[in-house]
Order: sequence, then structure tokens, then C-alpha cells
Amino acid sequence: MDDMKNRIIPVAEETVDFEVQRDRRIDEMTVLLEEKKMKQLRLVLDENDEFEVAEFLTELPDNQMAMVFRMLSKEQAAAVFAELDPEEQEYIINSITDKELGGILDELYLDDTVDMMEELPANVVKRVMRIATPETRKLVNQYLRYPENSAGSIMTAEFVDLKKYMNVKESFARIRRIGADKETIYTCFVTSADRKLEGIVSVKDLLLANEDAVIGDIMDENVVFCTTTDDQEDVSGLFTDYNLLAVPVVDKENRLVGIVTVDDVMDVMEQEATEDIEIMAAITPSDKPYSRTGVFDIWKNRFPWLLLLMLSATFTSMILTSFEDALAVQAALIAFIPMLMGTGGNSGSQASTAVIRSLSLGDIEPGDVFLVIWKEIRVAALCGFTLAVINFGKLFLVDRLLLGNDGVTITIALTVCVTIFFVIVFAKAVGCTLPIVAEKVGIDPAVMAAPLISTLTDAISLLIYFAIAKLLLHI
Amino acid sequence: MDDMKNRIIPVAEETVDFEVQRDRRIDEMTVLLEEKKMKQLRLVLDENDEFEVAEFLTELPDNQMAMVFRMLSKEQAAAVFAELDPEEQEYIINSITDKELGGILDELYLDDTVDMMEELPANVVKRVMRIATPETRKLVNQYLRYPENSAGSIMTAEFVDLKKYMNVKESFARIRRIGADKETIYTCFVTSADRKLEGIVSVKDLLLANEDAVIGDIMDENVVFCTTTDDQEDVSGLFTDYNLLAVPVVDKENRLVGIVTVDDVMDVMEQEATEDIEIMAAITPSDKPYSRTGVFDIWKNRFPWLLLLMLSATFTSMILTSFEDALAVQAALIAFIPMLMGTGGNSGSQASTAVIRSLSLGDIEPGDVFLVIWKEIRVAALCGFTLAVINFGKLFLVDRLLLGNDGVTITIALTVCVTIFFVIVFAKAVGCTLPIVAEKVGIDPAVMAAPLISTLTDAISLLIYFAIAKLLLHI
Repeated sequence: MDDMKNRIIPVAEETVDFEVQRDRRIDEMTVLLEEKKMKQLRLVLDENDEFEVAEFLTELPDNQMAMVFRMLSKEQAAAVFAELDPEEQEYIINSITDKELGGILDELYLDDTVDMMEELPANVVKRVMRIATPETRKLVNQYLRYPENSAGSIMTAEFVDLKKYMNVKESFARIRRIGADKETIYTCFVTSADRKLEGIVSVKDLLLANEDAVIGDIMDENVVFCTTTDDQEDVSGLFTDYNLLAVPVVDKENRLVGIVTVDDVMDVMEQEATEDIEIMAAITPSDKPYSRTGVFDIWKNRFPWLLLLMLSATFTSMILTSFEDALAVQAALIAFIPMLMGTGGNSGSQASTAVIRSLSLGDIEPGDVFLVIWKEIRVAALCGFTLAVINFGKLFLVDRLLLGNDGVTITIALTVCVTIFFVIVFAKAVGCTLPIVAEKVGIDPAVMAAPLISTLTDAISLLIYFAIAKLLLHI
Repeated sequence: MDDMKNRIIPVAEETVDFEVQRDRRIDEMTVLLEEKKMKQLRLVLDENDEFEVAEFLTELPDNQMAMVFRMLSKEQAAAVFAELDPEEQEYIINSITDKELGGILDELYLDDTVDMMEELPANVVKRVMRIATPETRKLVNQYLRYPENSAGSIMTAEFVDLKKYMNVKESFARIRRIGADKETIYTCFVTSADRKLEGIVSVKDLLLANEDAVIGDIMDENVVFCTTTDDQEDVSGLFTDYNLLAVPVVDKENRLVGIVTVDDVMDVMEQEATEDIEIMAAITPSDKPYSRTGVFDIWKNRFPWLLLLMLSATFTSMILTSFEDALAVQAALIAFIPMLMGTGGNSGSQASTAVIRSLSLGDIEPGDVFLVIWKEIRVAALCGFTLAVINFGKLFLVDRLLLGNDGVTITIALTVCVTIFFVIVFAKAVGCTLPIVAEKVGIDPAVMAAPLISTLTDAISLLIYFAIAKLLLHI
């Protein structure tokens, strides 16, 4: 063991970046494996933390991965297993014996087991369920029934429960006894005989209290909690609003059935932000990271939206066709169609994005719709006026004088600039309203982002353009 | 106190939503204030947690807010103060005595003080600095010098430090003595005599270890850490990669100068996602929530982008102008310009959004550029082919037969559909490349999102369209 201690790089020894240290540790494992120093590798695998070992395994070819995985100690194997991707988990399950798999299942936290079950193909799930203990099997089945993205689907059953009548000393004894297998010990949950949640007490409270103090006296009854069916996004809101490390989850009868911990909530936050961003770019969200999604799956996530938007553009085609003759006479008008559409689309998506994000952060609520519209209309008037004035100058200086485009007369320039103003006001009004309406009728507001707003404002921008051209140019 | 106990709603008593309970508690404070039951209100204010009291205060008119705030106990006042918005903090600072302010500063965590200082106007900062203790003043000054969005700017100095030679019993004694004022006690940091970080030990490790065990033996030397100048986004990546509650921050000499805790990191994650989303919609990000940003500030965040994009559309105008005569002959071509531009823009922004998000989550790296391009080109070919075929059918069935647009000949339909294919391939190739190039040259990849990509693909789509029209229609 002595040469092991020398191998690990103590932080204080040299000033190197943490990433560099981690890469070094992973490289070390690679070298040991290449040099077939298995005994040393086994020691290093258990010394390193599960995240690094998981990264090391991921970089290996499948057959080597399974071989190295089987060298891990039982506890390390479970910890590493929880960090692997579903494909790798599946490969490993298929390469180990029932007994090894049973050992891993014993050590896995319930929420990790449930996550895995949701991703595995049916035949593998069957084998896992057959090997799991009856109690795990029952719990997994129950958890799998909670709706997707609900608090129930992300909670775990491994928490420390205390009783009101215990004193601090007894509580510490209990934490010491059962704490090793719990996902968190820092928040303990006080339950009644019929498993109802009565309060919480933190290890900090326990440490700062007298040994003889009774839990019932020091616990906090004012508990932030959620129910199994609450949306995971609302649960993550509780963590950010109240700076929590764990939130209890109760069922309809107010019985404590699980807890959600802060590390799971951070994954939820990342996942929810990614989903919003993807939907806002007209992509069907997927759980898989981009680098691991195949070409055909990416096509499936993108094609329907492109098709829908392409077909919606039929309206702009119809509008343009009906003004074909007028455009033949005033051909200079054609040149500004993309600019007007672009400005409309960008203005609208600025408003819709701001509103979508504010809705999802809870900064605004559907009830604020009129306040939001009033704000956006004033912003739009300001943007519209400034852009129209600048564009008027630009049309003369750049298009007419610099580029020598004689088609740009004062009336044409005026038509374009008046159109800009109204297009922006319209686009921002629609852009801020649609996400709120979507939220009200139960559609994800993120759908009402740039692509859909642009397609809508494209058509309306053209109508506004031709209406104003009719008025000013008598086309 | 007995009637106090009855007032608080124990969770187990009735099945009500947590939000409902909270609103009830806030309503109770409102009623007590309205009925001028100040003594009772004072009790309730201290019973409720700081988040609810802060929300209650926020709903009051300014003068009442300051009055109620002064009723809080010293500890509660600091906790509530940290939860208020900068405007409200400023109002309160201006309404309280130097002594009251000093009391709050004593109780505030350093990172909250620094956050506040960054937002307050200069004259208020001066007063706060005058009243703060010399030590706080020194620390605040030092913290304010860390670059914005660096680990140094979000860290706090309130952590528990232990020594290698301490045993578990002594460590617990130290935690009990100094723990009350620390932002977290659950991760303790082991430092050498010259303040270098040597390892970490969790309260869980301490609880599960023997009383006589020595910290040097049970501490983890394999520490995940960051340096003061690391970007806060990278720091939040450490928390999600390693499921941590706190990360130590070291300076260039490897001395432990602070810690970042998980609650601060969740705020960072939310803020970074909002920033990315705003930049991707051509909005300059701001720290203020939408509901609290004035019309003029919103205009300032949006107008420059709209202007830039409007001026860039000059290229599309020039292209259209140069094909004016050709379009006059083949007027049917005009009708499909918006559809082609829209499809190009949407295809490109799908690719750029996927790449931007993957870069920011660390799923792909700039070095993967060729893998990404190869993947996107295959996706684009698949999308392009399917959309072109469907559009060809649609042009005949809908535009020609249903809408009776005789201008849509086979050659025109072919021109449009071949263009679609090439526009999508081009847009996706550019859309996936630009964010990676931006990352490489140090520009935020989020800039390369829908608005910029659309403006770029607009011009190129037109060029492709006219090139193919020239070939097939000899315009």
C-alpha cells in the first residue's frame, strides 16, 4: 500500500489543474491495463472514484470493459455501474453472472435501478427482475408506475427516518447504523407510526443540539415537500427557492414514500433546459446526448418539424402568388421581402424566447398576459421606430447612392420603413402572447419559439407589406 | 407559545399542497399586519422560514416593508435580507441605522454580501463598507476583484477547516464550535499549516468512523477542486459530474481560499442556461428577471441585434435586385422564396442548436468537428431527400391542382425541390460548423444560433435557388 500512497497526487504537492490530475489518473489505469499489471490495476480501480473509473471504462472496447468491470469490488462495481450509459449497462449485464448481477442490484440505489430499467430492452429487464430481491422487485414496479418526469419517477427510497420520541444520541446511533446505504444522511425525516411525515431535522441541527434533546422539540415542522405526481420541474424549483439538499415526497395519504436529492435535481435542471432549448429550435427532445444519437434518430427528431414548417409556408407562397402582377410592376419591392421577414421573425422570437424562459423560471405567470403584452408593445414601438429611421437612411445611403439601385424611390423606402414598424409591433405582440396561451391550454410554451413564430410572422409581414404598398404605391 | 404550535400546519395533519400551505402562512402574516397585531406578527415572522418572510416583505409597500423588516430578530433579518432583490436591499439599507446594518453584515454570508455589493449603487456601497468590520471589508474587496462569472466571484469564505492530526472527536468538537456560522458543515476541508488543501472529509465519513480515528487516515486526498479564476460554468460541471455538495477553491499557490456550495451552483446553472437561451434568440443577456426589466433596458438588449441582422439582410436584397429581370420573366419562382429561406434557416438552426447545447454540456468538443460535420451531412441528406420528394408531390397536388396555380410547371417544381435538398445540406453543414469555430476562436458559440444562421442561409439559399433555376430554366 505504501507505493499506492505515493502514486496519488495530493492536491497540495503541485499546482496543476484538477482536469489534468484526473486525466493523469485515467491514463495511469490505461497504462496498467496495457502492461497487463492486473494486480496493481485492481488496487487503483478501487482507489479512484467511481466517476473516473466509469470514464476509463467508457473508453475501452466492449469486451475489455466487461473484463475490467469484473475486477471491481462489489461496492465500487455498483457505484461505477450507476454512472455508465444504458448501452454500457446492458453490455455489462449481459456479460456477468446472475450472482454478480445480484450483488450489484443489492448495492445500487433504487432510483438508479429504476433509471436503468426504464432504458433497458425488455428481455434484459426480465432477467434483472428475476434476479432482484422480491422487495426491490416490488419497489421497482411501483416506481415504474409513476408518470414520466414526476417527483415519483426521480425519487429514491433510501433515506434516514427518525421518530419524534428519539433523542439526539439515539438518532446519531441510528444514522451510524443505517446511514452507510442512504443516499443522504444530512436531512433526516421524522415520521409517525403510520409513516406520515411529521417534520425534518438536519444533521447540523443534531450536531448543534444537546445529546439529550428530543427530536420532536428540535425538528422543523415547517417542511418543504412535494407529492409523487408533482412535475419534476416544480420540484427543482423548490430546491432553488429554498436552497435544499433533499425534499421529501409524500403520497396522497401524506405518507412519506421517498426523497429527491439535490444531485438528481441538478440532472433534472440540465435535462429540462436542454429540452426547452431543443423544442425552441424545432427539435423533438431526446434523452440521449447528441454524440450518441444515430443519424436516423436525429432525422426522426428533426424531420417532422421541418415538414410542418415547410408546409405552413404554403400561405406565404399563396400571398406572393396573388401579388405576382403587382410585384412585376414594382419589382424593387421584392428585394426587401427577406429583410422584412427576417426582422419580423427575429423580433417575434426575441419576445417569445423571453416569455418562454420567464414562464419556465416562474418569473411570470399566465395571469400576467396583459402586463406582458403592454410591455412588449412599448418595446416593439421603440425597436420599430429606431429601426425604421435607421433603415430609411440606409436605403438612401447604401442601396441608392452606394449600390446605385435606382428602384429605391422615396415612396418605396417609406413603404419599407412603415412596414418594418408595424411588422415589429405585430411580431412582438404575437411572440409574447402565444407562449402564454400555450401554457394556459396545456401545450409546452417552448413550441411557440423562433421557428413557429417566424413562419407565422412571415405570412403576416407580407400582408402588412402589400397593404402599405397598396396605400402608398397604389399597386 | 402553545397557541403558536397550533397555528403552524403540520404536514401530517391534512393533505394539502405545499404551495397552498406556504400561501396560507404568508396570508396569515398579511392579516396580522393589517390587524396591527404586532406582537403576534413578530413571533410568526421568526417562526416562518426566511424565504416566506422575504416573499411576504416583497409584497408590501416600501415603507411597510422597512417597518416589518426592523421587527425581525438579528439572525432572521440577515437570512431574509439575503433573499431580497437588490432594489429592496437598497431600500432597507437606506431605512435602517448603522448599528442595525452592522448587525446584518455580521450575520450575512460573505458571498451574499459580495453579491449585494455588486448590485448596489456606489454611495450605498460606501456606507456599507464604512460600517463593515475591517476583516469583512478586506475580504469583500478581495472578492470583488475576481473576474465576473469566475469561481472566485461565487465562492464563500465560511467553511469548516480541520487538521490532519485531529481525531474524529476533536473534529466534531470543532464543527460544533464553529459550524453554526458556516455555509456548509457537511464537507470539511483539511488544510496544512500554510493553508494548503490536503484533503476533504465529509460528516458522513466522520459519523461512520471511530471516535479515535485520525483525520489524516480517513480523509479523501483525491479531491475535486477548482481555482479562483475557473469559469463558473466549469465549476457547475464538476458538481453534476461528481454529485458534490461543495467544491474547494484554491488560489495559484494552492491555498484554500473559499468554497462553492451546491445551492450557489444551482443558481449558476439556471443563469447560464438563461444566458445561452437569450443569446441564441439574439438578446443580450441581463441578470435581471424579465418581469423586473424596464422597457428601455429590454430595448437596449434587443435593438443592436435586430439592427445588425437587418443590415446583414442587405446581401439578400442585392442578390434579389440582381435577379429582378429574371424574376419578372419567371414570376412563379418568387412564391417559393420564403419557403426555401425558412427551410434553410430552420434546418441550420436545428444543427447549430444541437451543437451549441452539446458543447455547453461537454458532450462534444471542438476536436470533434469533422465527426459532427459528417453526421450532420448524413442527417441533412436524409432530411433534404425526404422533404424534396414530399414537396414535389405537394407542389403538384396542392399548388397546381388544388390552388390552380398554373405557374408551377414540372421544371419549376424540380427547381424548387432540388434547391431544397442543397439548401438543407448547406444549412446543416454551416449550422454545425460555426458554433465549433466560434468556440475555438473564443466567441460564445450561442451567438451562432438561429438568427445569425438564418440570415446567412437566407443569402446562400437564394444563390443556390438562382443557380439551379439558371441550369434548369435557363433564366
